Amino acid sequence: MSDLDAVLFANEVFYRAFADRDMAAMEDMWAKTLPVCCIHPGWEAIYERDDVIESWRAILGGETSPDVNCLSPRVYFYGDAAFVVCFEEIHGDHLIATNYFVRQDGQWKIVHHQAGPTRAIVPEPQEAPDRTIN
Amino acid sequence: MSDLDAVLFANEVFYRAFADRDMAAMEDMWAKTLPVCCIHPGWEAIYERDDVIESWRAILGGETSPDVNCLSPRVYFYGDAAFVVCFEEIHGDHLIATNYFVRQDGQWKIVHHQAGPTRAIVPEPQEAPDRTIN
Repeated sequence: MSDLDAVLFANEVFYRAFADRDMAAMEDMWAKTLPVCCIHPGWEAIYERDDVIESWRAILGGETSPDVNCLSPRVYFYGDAAFVVCFEEIHGDHLIATNYFVRQDGQWKIVHHQAGPTRAIVPEPQEAPDRTIN
Repeated sequence: MSDLDAVLFANEVFYRAFADRDMAAMEDMWAKTLPVCCIHPGWEAIYERDDVIESWRAILGGETSPDVNCLSPRVYFYGDAAFVVCFEEIHGDHLIATNYFVRQDGQWKIVHHQAGPTRAIVPEPQEAPDRTIN
């Protein structure tokens, strides 16, 4: 699997956990020994891992936990760090999100998620860009 | 200057360029040989450097170019990559932003900016956290 594919895969695992309300998988995706942060749409930032995990537990465990679908992910790659910019389709609306990943012991883990509103019309799916700088 | 201070300084240079409508300084802050992306608040993502620079040229050159003040920056550090989470005070309102930096040839350059609305009450300034993982 190429580095870009590995980052895209990590991003898919993140959204699979989100869509499936799979808290164990969600928790596993967040880096354990690196600092993490999360900005849910419109929320304040959540600066510490325990609070980030707790926020996901509340979202995934809530009665209004949204169905989510990740669209048009694009990878930006910088060696052992990368981010994915994508759209989140939730109840027919779209948010725009950035997910930051860091590679540690060969595994890509998420260290930051920020989602917010967008006026964009979601573009058609594209081939994964080959933006490798290594 | 410590690594954390260097990242905070790069973040300050970015906001200084923004506040001063200094397009040359703004353009210099964006990495030239790395892929970059920018998500202005509520906008669609801008995926290519030329378009990112053009968007800043339009913002800084516009008659409604906002006064901006960066508040409560927090650095998350991952060796040669880092991001800063901060508030942007614009016309008395607050946005929350993440600025993603990569170190190249000893210089921290911005490769991604995302700003969006927040319901947060802006916290008091804090000491820079010492989240160094190297």
